[in-house]
Amino acid sequence: MPSRFKLILAYDGGPFEGFQYQCGHRTVQGEIETALRSLGWRARHILSAARTDSGVHAVGQVVAFDLEWAHSTGELARALNAALPREIACREVEIVRPDFHPRFDAAGRRYRYRIYQAPGRDPLLDRFAWQVWPGLDLERVQRVSRSLVGEHDFRAFGSAPRCGGNTFRRVGRAEWETDDKQLSFWMEANAFLFRMVRMTVGSVVRLGQGRISEDEFLGLLREPEQGRGGPAAPARGLCLMGVDYLGAARDHRAALRRDLGE
Amino acid sequence: MPSRFKLILAYDGGPFEGFQYQCGHRTVQGEIETALRSLGWRARHILSAARTDSGVHAVGQVVAFDLEWAHSTGELARALNAALPREIACREVEIVRPDFHPRFDAAGRRYRYRIYQAPGRDPLLDRFAWQVWPGLDLERVQRVSRSLVGEHDFRAFGSAPRCGGNTFRRVGRAEWETDDKQLSFWMEANAFLFRMVRMTVGSVVRLGQGRISEDEFLGLLREPEQGRGGPAAPARGLCLMGVDYLGAARDHRAALRRDLGE
Repeated sequence: MPSRFKLILAYDGGPFEGFQYQCGHRTVQGEIETALRSLGWRARHILSAARTDSGVHAVGQVVAFDLEWAHSTGELARALNAALPREIACREVEIVRPDFHPRFDAAGRRYRYRIYQAPGRDPLLDRFAWQVWPGLDLERVQRVSRSLVGEHDFRAFGSAPRCGGNTFRRVGRAEWETDDKQLSFWMEANAFLFRMVRMTVGSVVRLGQGRISEDEFLGLLREPEQGRGGPAAPARGLCLMGVDYLGAARDHRAALRRDLGE
Repeated sequence: MPSRFKLILAYDGGPFEGFQYQCGHRTVQGEIETALRSLGWRARHILSAARTDSGVHAVGQVVAFDLEWAHSTGELARALNAALPREIACREVEIVRPDFHPRFDAAGRRYRYRIYQAPGRDPLLDRFAWQVWPGLDLERVQRVSRSLVGEHDFRAFGSAPRCGGNTFRRVGRAEWETDDKQLSFWMEANAFLFRMVRMTVGSVVRLGQGRISEDEFLGLLREPEQGRGGPAAPARGLCLMGVDYLGAARDHRAALRRDLGE
Protein backbone atom coordinates (compact mmCIF):
# COMPACT_ATOMS: atom_id res chain seq x y z
CA MET A 1 0.00 0.00 0.00
CA PRO A 2 1.75 3.25 -1.10
CA SER A 3 1.95 6.32 1.17
CA ARG A 4 1.91 9.94 0.08
CA PHE A 5 5.24 11.60 0.84
CA LYS A 6 5.94 15.31 1.16
CA LEU A 7 9.53 16.46 0.56
CA ILE A 8 11.20 19.79 1.24
CA LEU A 9 13.89 20.38 -1.38
CA ALA A 10 16.77 22.80 -1.85
CA TYR A 11 18.48 23.41 -5.17
CA ASP A 12 20.96 25.59 -6.98
CA GLY A 13 18.88 26.43 -10.07
CA GLY A 14 21.95 27.41 -12.12
CA PRO A 15 22.43 24.20 -14.14
CA PHE A 16 18.72 23.51 -14.75
CA GLU A 17 16.22 24.75 -17.31
CA GLY A 18 13.66 25.54 -14.64
CA PHE A 19 11.78 23.30 -12.26
CA GLN A 20 9.08 21.86 -14.50
CA TYR A 21 9.62 18.64 -16.44
CA GLN A 22 10.33 19.15 -20.15
CA CYS A 23 11.20 16.24 -22.37
CA GLY A 24 14.84 16.41 -23.49
CA HIS A 25 15.81 19.20 -21.05
CA ARG A 26 17.58 19.06 -17.72
CA THR A 27 15.04 20.25 -15.15
CA VAL A 28 14.81 19.92 -11.37
CA GLN A 29 11.57 17.95 -11.59
CA GLY A 30 13.12 15.64 -14.18
CA GLU A 31 16.09 14.94 -11.88
CA ILE A 32 13.83 14.22 -8.91
CA GLU A 33 11.67 11.88 -10.96
CA THR A 34 14.76 10.05 -12.23
CA ALA A 35 16.00 9.65 -8.63
CA LEU A 36 12.56 8.39 -7.51
CA ARG A 37 12.39 5.88 -10.36
CA SER A 38 15.66 4.38 -9.11
CA LEU A 39 13.74 3.70 -5.86
CA GLY A 40 10.86 1.93 -7.57
CA TRP A 41 8.50 4.89 -8.12
CA ARG A 42 6.41 4.34 -11.25
CA ALA A 43 3.92 7.25 -11.64
CA ARG A 44 4.10 9.80 -14.44
CA HIS A 45 4.81 13.01 -12.51
CA ILE A 46 5.28 14.33 -9.00
CA LEU A 47 3.21 17.25 -7.61
CA SER A 48 4.95 20.51 -6.69
CA ALA A 49 4.21 23.76 -4.86
CA ALA A 50 5.79 26.13 -7.38
CA ARG A 51 7.22 25.95 -10.88
CA THR A 52 10.34 28.04 -10.45
CA ASP A 53 11.82 29.57 -13.62
CA SER A 54 15.10 28.59 -15.22
CA GLY A 55 17.96 29.70 -12.96
CA VAL A 56 15.80 30.31 -9.85
CA HIS A 57 16.98 28.62 -6.65
CA ALA A 58 15.12 27.08 -3.72
CA VAL A 59 15.69 26.10 -0.13
CA GLY A 60 12.03 25.32 0.57
CA GLN A 61 10.40 23.86 -2.55
CA VAL A 62 7.73 21.28 -1.67
CA VAL A 63 6.85 18.22 -3.75
CA ALA A 64 4.64 15.20 -3.14
CA PHE A 65 4.23 11.71 -4.63
CA ASP A 66 2.95 8.24 -3.74
CA LEU A 67 5.49 5.50 -3.10
CA GLU A 68 5.64 2.02 -1.62
CA TRP A 69 8.52 2.35 0.86
CA ALA A 70 9.24 -0.27 3.51
CA HIS A 71 11.85 1.78 5.41
CA SER A 72 11.88 4.99 7.46
CA THR A 73 11.44 8.52 6.08
CA GLY A 74 15.08 9.20 7.10
CA GLU A 75 16.18 6.32 4.92
CA LEU A 76 14.14 7.70 2.02
CA ALA A 77 15.89 11.07 2.43
CA ARG A 78 19.30 9.36 2.41
CA ALA A 79 18.45 7.20 -0.61
CA LEU A 80 17.20 10.22 -2.54
CA ASN A 81 20.22 12.34 -1.67
CA ALA A 82 22.50 9.56 -2.86
CA ALA A 83 20.62 9.42 -6.18
CA LEU A 84 20.19 13.19 -6.76
CA PRO A 85 22.82 15.39 -8.41
CA ARG A 86 24.89 17.62 -6.09
CA GLU A 87 22.84 20.72 -6.94
CA ILE A 88 19.64 19.25 -5.47
CA ALA A 89 19.16 18.13 -1.88
CA CYS A 90 16.25 16.62 -0.04
CA ARG A 91 16.02 18.41 3.33
CA GLU A 92 12.95 16.79 4.90
CA VAL A 93 10.66 13.85 4.23
CA GLU A 94 7.26 13.39 5.84
CA ILE A 95 4.28 11.09 5.30
CA VAL A 96 1.12 13.14 4.73
CA ARG A 97 -2.55 12.38 4.16
CA PRO A 98 -3.23 10.72 0.78
CA ASP A 99 -4.86 13.80 -0.78
CA PHE A 100 -2.21 16.35 0.26
CA HIS A 101 -1.47 18.69 -2.67
CA PRO A 102 1.65 20.88 -2.33
CA ARG A 103 0.22 23.63 -4.54
CA PHE A 104 -3.47 23.75 -3.70
CA ASP A 105 -3.00 23.19 0.03
CA ALA A 106 -0.40 25.95 0.31
CA ALA A 107 -1.55 28.99 2.28
CA GLY A 108 1.50 31.11 1.41
CA ARG A 109 4.86 31.27 -0.29
CA ARG A 110 8.04 33.05 0.77
CA TYR A 111 10.69 34.29 -1.64
CA ARG A 112 14.01 36.07 -1.19
CA TYR A 113 15.69 38.15 -3.88
CA ARG A 114 19.37 38.97 -3.41
CA ILE A 115 21.26 41.95 -4.78
CA TYR A 116 24.85 43.04 -4.42
CA GLN A 117 25.84 46.61 -5.09
CA ALA A 118 29.14 46.82 -6.94
CA PRO A 119 30.53 48.56 -10.02
CA GLY A 120 31.77 45.21 -11.40
CA ARG A 121 30.72 41.53 -11.30
CA ASP A 122 31.77 39.47 -8.31
CA PRO A 123 31.90 35.86 -9.54
CA LEU A 124 31.63 34.49 -5.98
CA LEU A 125 28.33 36.32 -5.36
CA ASP A 126 27.01 36.37 -8.90
CA ARG A 127 25.55 32.86 -8.93
CA PHE A 128 23.00 33.68 -6.23
CA ALA A 129 22.57 37.45 -6.53
CA TRP A 130 22.10 40.28 -9.02
CA GLN A 131 24.85 42.87 -9.43
CA VAL A 132 23.33 46.36 -9.29
CA TRP A 133 25.12 49.65 -9.96
CA PRO A 134 24.75 52.55 -9.20
CA GLY A 135 23.75 51.74 -5.62
CA LEU A 136 20.21 52.15 -4.28
CA ASP A 137 18.63 54.80 -2.09
CA LEU A 138 17.67 52.28 0.59
CA GLU A 139 15.28 54.48 2.53
CA ARG A 140 13.25 55.10 -0.62
CA VAL A 141 13.38 51.43 -1.58
CA GLN A 142 12.18 50.33 1.85
CA ARG A 143 9.36 52.89 1.87
CA VAL A 144 7.80 51.92 -1.46
CA SER A 145 8.29 48.22 -0.78
CA ARG A 146 6.06 48.56 2.29
CA SER A 147 3.27 49.88 0.09
CA LEU A 148 3.13 46.48 -1.62
CA VAL A 149 1.78 44.86 1.56
CA GLY A 150 -1.96 44.17 1.45
CA GLU A 151 -4.28 42.96 -1.28
CA HIS A 152 -3.58 44.57 -4.65
CA ASP A 153 -4.00 43.96 -8.34
CA PHE A 154 -0.42 43.06 -9.30
CA ARG A 155 -0.99 42.81 -13.05
CA ALA A 156 1.72 45.43 -13.69
CA PHE A 157 4.18 43.02 -12.03
CA GLY A 158 3.35 39.71 -13.66
CA SER A 159 0.75 37.61 -15.35
CA ALA A 160 -1.85 35.13 -14.12
CA PRO A 161 -1.15 31.42 -14.59
CA ARG A 162 -3.95 31.36 -17.17
CA CYS A 163 -5.03 34.04 -19.66
CA GLY A 164 -7.66 36.34 -18.10
CA GLY A 165 -7.04 34.85 -14.61
CA ASN A 166 -7.34 36.85 -11.41
CA THR A 167 -4.30 39.13 -10.87
CA PHE A 168 -5.09 40.12 -7.25
CA ARG A 169 -2.70 38.74 -4.66
CA ARG A 170 -2.39 39.28 -0.91
CA VAL A 171 1.13 40.28 0.13
CA GLY A 172 2.01 39.76 3.79
CA ARG A 173 5.61 40.94 3.74
CA ALA A 174 7.74 43.02 1.40
CA GLU A 175 10.92 44.34 2.94
CA TRP A 176 14.65 44.66 2.49
CA GLU A 177 17.36 43.41 4.81
CA THR A 178 21.05 44.19 4.65
CA ASP A 179 23.45 41.33 5.25
CA ASP A 180 27.17 41.76 4.82
CA LYS A 181 27.78 42.85 1.23
CA GLN A 182 24.28 41.92 0.06
CA LEU A 183 20.71 43.18 0.15
CA SER A 184 17.86 40.72 0.49
CA PHE A 185 14.28 41.48 -0.48
CA TRP A 186 11.78 39.25 1.34
CA MET A 187 8.36 38.87 -0.22
CA GLU A 188 5.56 36.70 1.15
CA ALA A 189 2.10 36.30 -0.35
CA ASN A 190 -0.79 33.85 -0.48
CA ALA A 191 0.25 33.17 -4.08
CA PHE A 192 2.33 34.87 -6.78
CA LEU A 193 1.76 35.83 -10.38
CA PHE A 194 4.21 34.54 -12.98
CA ARG A 195 7.49 36.55 -12.54
CA MET A 196 5.94 38.70 -9.81
CA VAL A 197 8.95 38.86 -7.47
CA ARG A 198 11.42 39.51 -10.29
CA MET A 199 9.23 42.22 -11.89
CA THR A 200 8.73 43.85 -8.48
CA VAL A 201 12.47 43.83 -7.76
CA GLY A 202 13.16 45.22 -11.25
CA SER A 203 10.81 48.16 -10.56
CA VAL A 204 12.07 48.75 -7.01
CA VAL A 205 15.67 48.86 -8.26
CA ARG A 206 14.75 51.39 -10.94
CA LEU A 207 13.16 53.50 -8.23
CA GLY A 208 16.13 53.06 -5.91
CA GLN A 209 18.43 54.32 -8.66
CA GLY A 210 16.20 57.34 -9.27
CA ARG A 211 15.12 56.20 -12.73
CA ILE A 212 11.42 56.29 -11.81
CA SER A 213 9.67 58.37 -9.13
CA GLU A 214 7.78 57.08 -6.10
CA ASP A 215 4.59 58.32 -7.75
CA GLU A 216 5.27 56.33 -10.89
CA PHE A 217 5.96 53.24 -8.79
CA LEU A 218 2.77 53.62 -6.75
CA GLY A 219 0.84 54.24 -9.99
CA LEU A 220 1.75 50.69 -11.03
CA LEU A 221 -0.29 49.47 -8.05
CA ARG A 222 -3.10 52.06 -8.21
CA GLU A 223 -3.75 51.93 -11.96
CA PRO A 224 -2.20 48.64 -12.93
CA GLU A 225 -1.58 47.82 -16.53
CA GLN A 226 -0.31 44.46 -17.77
CA GLY A 227 3.48 44.29 -17.79
CA ARG A 228 4.13 48.01 -17.14
CA GLY A 229 6.35 47.16 -14.15
CA GLY A 230 9.77 45.62 -14.32
CA PRO A 231 11.77 44.77 -16.35
CA ALA A 232 12.18 41.48 -14.50
CA ALA A 233 15.34 41.18 -12.38
CA PRO A 234 17.54 38.20 -13.41
CA ALA A 235 16.49 34.74 -12.23
CA ARG A 236 19.72 33.97 -10.39
CA GLY A 237 18.94 36.38 -7.50
CA LEU A 238 15.67 34.64 -6.66
CA CYS A 239 15.19 31.84 -4.15
CA LEU A 240 11.98 30.10 -3.04
CA MET A 241 12.49 30.06 0.73
CA GLY A 242 9.42 28.17 1.87
CA VAL A 243 5.81 27.21 1.40
CA ASP A 244 3.38 27.43 4.31
CA TYR A 245 0.54 25.03 5.02
CA LEU A 246 -2.26 25.44 7.51
CA GLY A 247 -3.04 22.70 9.98
CA ALA A 248 -6.45 22.05 8.40
CA ALA A 249 -5.91 23.13 4.85
CA ARG A 250 -8.84 21.41 3.16
CA ASP A 251 -11.37 24.21 3.36
CA HIS A 252 -9.48 27.03 1.74
CA ARG A 253 -8.61 24.95 -1.31
CA ALA A 254 -11.78 25.67 -3.28
CA ALA A 255 -11.55 29.33 -2.28
CA LEU A 256 -7.93 29.54 -3.43
CA ARG A 257 -8.70 27.87 -6.74
CA ARG A 258 -11.45 30.44 -7.21
CA ASP A 259 -9.09 33.27 -6.14
CA LEU A 260 -6.52 32.13 -8.65
CA GLY A 261 -9.18 31.96 -11.34
CA GLU A 262 -8.54 28.29 -12.04
CA MET B 1 55.05 50.12 -28.00
CA PRO B 2 53.32 47.51 -25.80
CA SER B 3 53.05 47.89 -22.03
CA ARG B 4 53.08 45.13 -19.44
CA PHE B 5 49.72 44.91 -17.68
CA LYS B 6 48.99 43.28 -14.33
CA LEU B 7 45.39 42.15 -13.72
CA ILE B 8 43.68 41.03 -10.53
CA LEU B 9 41.02 38.45 -11.40
CA ALA B 10 38.13 36.80 -9.60
CA TYR B 11 36.49 33.59 -10.79
CA ASP B 12 34.02 30.92 -9.88
CA GLY B 13 36.12 27.85 -10.68
CA GLY B 14 33.08 25.55 -10.94
CA PRO B 15 32.69 25.44 -14.73
CA PHE B 16 36.40 25.31 -15.57
CA GLU B 17 38.93 22.49 -15.78
CA GLY B 18 41.42 24.42 -13.70
CA PHE B 19 43.31 27.62 -14.37
CA GLN B 20 46.06 26.44 -16.71
CA TYR B 21 45.58 26.41 -20.48
CA GLN B 22 44.93 22.94 -21.94
CA CYS B 23 44.13 22.51 -25.59
CA GLY B 24 40.51 21.44 -26.06
CA HIS B 25 39.47 22.10 -22.44
CA ARG B 26 37.63 25.02 -20.90
CA THR B 27 40.12 26.65 -18.53
CA VAL B 28 40.29 30.07 -16.87
CA GLN B 29 43.56 30.91 -18.63
CA GLY B 30 42.06 29.84 -21.97
CA GLU B 31 39.07 32.16 -21.46
CA ILE B 32 41.28 35.11 -20.53
CA GLU B 33 43.50 34.54 -23.55
CA THR B 34 40.44 34.35 -25.83
CA ALA B 35 39.16 37.64 -24.38
CA LEU B 36 42.59 39.27 -24.81
CA ARG B 37 42.82 38.09 -28.42
CA SER B 38 39.56 39.89 -29.14
CA LEU B 39 41.41 43.06 -28.04
CA GLY B 40 44.35 42.51 -30.39
CA TRP B 41 46.70 40.57 -28.08
CA ARG B 42 48.83 38.16 -30.10
CA ALA B 43 51.29 36.38 -27.76
CA ARG B 44 51.11 32.68 -26.99
CA HIS B 45 50.37 32.69 -23.25
CA ILE B 46 49.84 35.05 -20.33
CA LEU B 47 51.83 34.76 -17.08
CA SER B 48 50.06 33.89 -13.83
CA ALA B 49 50.73 33.83 -10.09
CA ALA B 50 49.18 30.43 -9.36
CA ARG B 51 47.80 27.49 -11.32
CA THR B 52 44.65 26.78 -9.35
CA ASP B 53 43.22 23.25 -9.68
CA SER B 54 39.98 22.34 -11.38
CA GLY B 55 37.07 23.70 -9.32
CA VAL B 56 39.17 26.10 -7.19
CA HIS B 57 37.93 29.71 -7.03
CA ALA B 58 39.78 33.03 -6.84
CA VAL B 59 39.16 36.60 -5.87
CA GLY B 60 42.81 37.63 -6.11
CA GLN B 61 44.50 35.71 -8.94
CA VAL B 62 47.19 37.80 -10.67
CA VAL B 63 48.13 37.57 -14.34
CA ALA B 64 50.37 39.66 -16.60
CA PHE B 65 50.84 40.16 -20.35
CA ASP B 66 52.13 42.69 -22.88
CA LEU B 67 49.60 44.61 -24.96
CA GLU B 68 49.46 47.65 -27.19
CA TRP B 69 46.54 49.59 -25.70
CA ALA B 70 45.77 53.19 -26.63
CA HIS B 71 43.12 53.77 -23.95
CA SER B 72 43.04 53.91 -20.14
CA THR B 73 43.45 50.94 -17.78
CA GLY B 74 39.80 51.43 -16.74
CA GLU B 75 38.76 51.00 -20.35
CA LEU B 76 40.85 47.83 -20.60
CA ALA B 77 39.05 46.44 -17.53
CA ARG B 78 35.65 47.26 -19.05
CA ALA B 79 36.56 45.77 -22.43
CA LEU B 80 37.84 42.58 -20.79
CA ASN B 81 34.78 42.22 -18.58
CA ALA B 82 32.55 42.59 -21.60
CA ALA B 83 34.49 39.83 -23.38
CA LEU B 84 34.90 37.42 -20.43
CA PRO B 85 32.28 34.84 -19.42
CA ARG B 86 30.14 35.71 -16.35
CA GLU B 87 32.17 33.41 -14.08
CA ILE B 88 35.38 35.44 -14.54
CA ALA B 89 35.79 39.12 -13.67
CA CYS B 90 38.69 41.50 -14.00
CA ARG B 91 38.84 43.50 -10.76
CA GLU B 92 41.90 45.70 -11.28
CA VAL B 93 44.23 46.65 -14.12
CA GLU B 94 47.61 48.29 -13.64
CA ILE B 95 50.62 49.03 -15.84
CA VAL B 96 53.77 47.51 -14.32
CA ARG B 97 57.47 47.43 -15.18
CA PRO B 98 58.21 45.39 -18.32
CA ASP B 99 59.83 42.48 -16.45
CA PHE B 100 57.14 42.05 -13.77
CA HIS B 101 56.42 38.33 -13.25
CA PRO B 102 53.28 37.48 -11.25
CA ARG B 103 54.71 34.19 -9.99
CA PHE B 104 58.40 34.88 -9.41
CA ASP B 105 57.87 38.36 -7.99
CA ALA B 106 55.23 37.20 -5.51
CA ALA B 107 56.33 37.35 -1.88
CA GLY B 108 53.28 35.49 -0.56
CA ARG B 109 49.92 33.93 -1.33
CA ARG B 110 46.73 33.92 0.71
CA TYR B 111 44.10 31.17 0.49
CA ARG B 112 40.76 30.64 2.21
CA TYR B 113 39.10 27.25 2.61
CA ARG B 114 35.40 27.20 3.49
CA ILE B 115 33.51 24.49 5.32
CA TYR B 116 29.89 24.22 6.39
CA GLN B 117 28.89 21.80 9.11
CA ALA B 118 25.61 20.08 8.28
CA PRO B 119 24.26 16.53 8.20
CA GLY B 120 23.07 17.03 4.60
CA ARG B 121 24.15 18.98 1.50
CA ASP B 122 23.09 22.61 1.23
CA PRO B 123 23.02 23.38 -2.51
CA LEU B 124 23.25 27.15 -1.89
CA LEU B 125 26.50 26.78 0.06
CA ASP B 126 27.89 23.73 -1.68
CA ARG B 127 29.37 25.50 -4.68
CA PHE B 128 31.88 27.43 -2.56
CA ALA B 129 32.27 25.26 0.54
CA TRP B 130 32.76 21.67 1.71
CA GLN B 131 29.99 19.97 3.70
CA VAL B 132 31.47 18.34 6.80
CA TRP B 133 29.66 16.08 9.26
CA PRO B 134 29.99 15.23 12.14
CA GLY B 135 30.93 18.75 13.29
CA LEU B 136 34.45 19.72 14.38
CA ASP B 137 35.98 20.27 17.79
CA LEU B 138 36.92 23.87 17.00
CA GLU B 139 39.24 24.45 19.90
CA ARG B 140 41.32 21.43 18.89
CA VAL B 141 41.26 22.47 15.22
CA GLN B 142 42.40 26.00 16.04
CA ARG B 143 45.19 24.75 18.31
CA VAL B 144 46.82 22.39 15.81
CA SER B 145 46.37 24.85 12.97
CA ARG B 146 48.52 27.36 14.85
CA SER B 147 51.33 24.82 14.90
CA LEU B 148 51.54 25.08 11.12
CA VAL B 149 52.84 28.64 11.37
CA GLY B 150 56.59 28.94 10.77
CA GLU B 151 58.98 27.22 8.39
CA HIS B 152 58.31 23.49 8.04
CA ASP B 153 58.79 20.62 5.65
CA PHE B 154 55.24 20.22 4.33
CA ARG B 155 55.89 17.11 2.22
CA ALA B 156 53.15 15.22 4.09
CA PHE B 157 50.68 17.85 2.84
CA GLY B 158 51.58 18.12 -0.83
CA SER B 159 54.23 17.77 -3.45
CA ALA B 160 56.84 20.12 -4.91
CA PRO B 161 56.20 21.57 -8.37
CA ARG B 162 59.02 19.38 -9.68
CA CYS B 163 60.13 15.91 -8.59
CA GLY B 164 62.69 16.14 -5.78
CA GLY B 165 62.04 19.88 -5.31
CA ASN B 166 62.24 21.64 -1.97
CA THR B 167 59.19 20.91 0.22
CA PHE B 168 59.90 23.53 2.90
CA ARG B 169 57.48 26.43 3.01
CA ARG B 170 57.13 29.40 5.38
CA VAL B 171 53.57 29.75 6.70
CA GLY B 172 52.63 33.16 8.11
CA ARG B 173 49.02 32.47 9.04
CA ALA B 174 46.91 29.37 9.59
CA GLU B 175 43.71 30.00 11.48
CA TRP B 176 39.98 29.43 11.46
CA GLU B 177 37.24 32.03 11.52
CA THR B 178 33.53 31.44 12.05
CA ASP B 179 31.17 33.42 9.88
CA ASP B 180 27.45 32.78 9.95
CA LYS B 181 26.88 29.13 9.05
CA GLN B 182 30.40 28.65 7.72
CA LEU B 183 33.96 28.10 8.90
CA SER B 184 36.84 29.67 7.00
CA PHE B 185 40.43 28.48 7.22
CA TRP B 186 42.92 31.19 6.27
CA MET B 187 46.35 30.09 5.19
CA GLU B 188 49.16 32.39 4.07
CA ALA B 189 52.65 31.34 3.02
CA ASN B 190 55.57 32.49 0.89
CA ALA B 191 54.59 29.73 -1.55
CA PHE B 192 52.53 26.53 -1.47
CA LEU B 193 53.16 22.94 -2.48
CA PHE B 194 50.75 21.33 -4.94
CA ARG B 195 47.46 20.66 -3.05
CA MET B 196 48.94 21.94 0.22
CA VAL B 197 45.88 23.84 1.49
CA ARG B 198 43.46 21.07 0.59
CA MET B 199 45.65 18.33 2.12
CA THR B 200 46.08 20.46 5.28
CA VAL B 201 42.33 21.04 5.57
CA GLY B 202 41.68 17.33 4.99
CA SER B 203 44.00 16.44 7.89
CA VAL B 204 42.67 19.17 10.18
CA VAL B 205 39.09 18.02 9.59
CA ARG B 206 40.03 14.42 10.42
CA LEU B 207 41.56 15.71 13.63
CA GLY B 208 38.53 17.90 14.39
CA GLN B 209 36.29 14.86 14.04
CA GLY B 210 38.49 12.85 16.36
CA ARG B 211 39.64 10.45 13.64
CA ILE B 212 43.34 11.23 14.24
CA SER B 213 45.02 12.49 17.42
CA GLU B 214 46.86 15.77 17.88
CA ASP B 215 50.06 13.75 18.16
CA GLU B 216 49.45 12.05 14.84
CA PHE B 217 48.77 15.42 13.23
CA LEU B 218 51.91 17.01 14.67
CA GLY B 219 53.88 13.94 13.58
CA LEU B 220 53.04 14.84 9.98
CA LEU B 221 55.04 18.05 10.48
CA ARG B 222 57.81 16.62 12.67
CA GLU B 223 58.54 13.47 10.67
CA PRO B 224 57.03 14.29 7.31
CA GLU B 225 56.48 11.58 4.76
CA GLN B 226 55.27 12.20 1.23
CA GLY B 227 51.47 12.26 1.00
CA ARG B 228 50.78 10.93 4.52
CA GLY B 229 48.51 13.90 5.28
CA GLY B 230 45.10 14.50 3.80
CA PRO B 231 43.15 13.18 2.02
CA ALA B 232 42.75 16.44 0.12
CA ALA B 233 39.56 18.38 0.89
CA PRO B 234 37.42 19.00 -2.23
CA ALA B 235 38.47 21.79 -4.60
CA ARG B 236 35.21 23.73 -4.37
CA GLY B 237 35.92 25.01 -0.82
CA LEU B 238 39.20 26.63 -1.83
CA CYS B 239 39.66 30.23 -2.96
CA LEU B 240 42.87 32.10 -3.84
CA MET B 241 42.30 35.35 -1.95
CA GLY B 242 45.37 37.32 -2.97
CA VAL B 243 49.00 37.45 -3.97
CA ASP B 244 51.37 39.86 -2.27
CA TYR B 245 54.22 41.71 -3.92
CA LEU B 246 56.98 43.65 -2.27
CA GLY B 247 57.71 47.18 -3.38
CA ALA B 248 61.16 46.21 -4.64
CA ALA B 249 60.67 42.62 -5.54
CA ARG B 250 63.62 42.07 -7.85
CA ASP B 251 66.13 40.83 -5.31
CA HIS B 252 64.28 37.97 -3.72
CA ARG B 253 63.45 36.41 -7.07
CA ALA B 254 66.62 34.35 -7.42
CA ALA B 255 66.36 33.34 -3.76
CA LEU B 256 62.77 32.22 -4.22
CA ARG B 257 63.58 30.25 -7.33
CA ARG B 258 66.30 28.52 -5.34
CA ASP B 259 63.90 27.98 -2.40
CA LEU B 260 61.40 26.38 -4.71
CA GLY B 261 64.07 24.15 -6.19
CA GLU B 262 63.48 25.44 -9.71
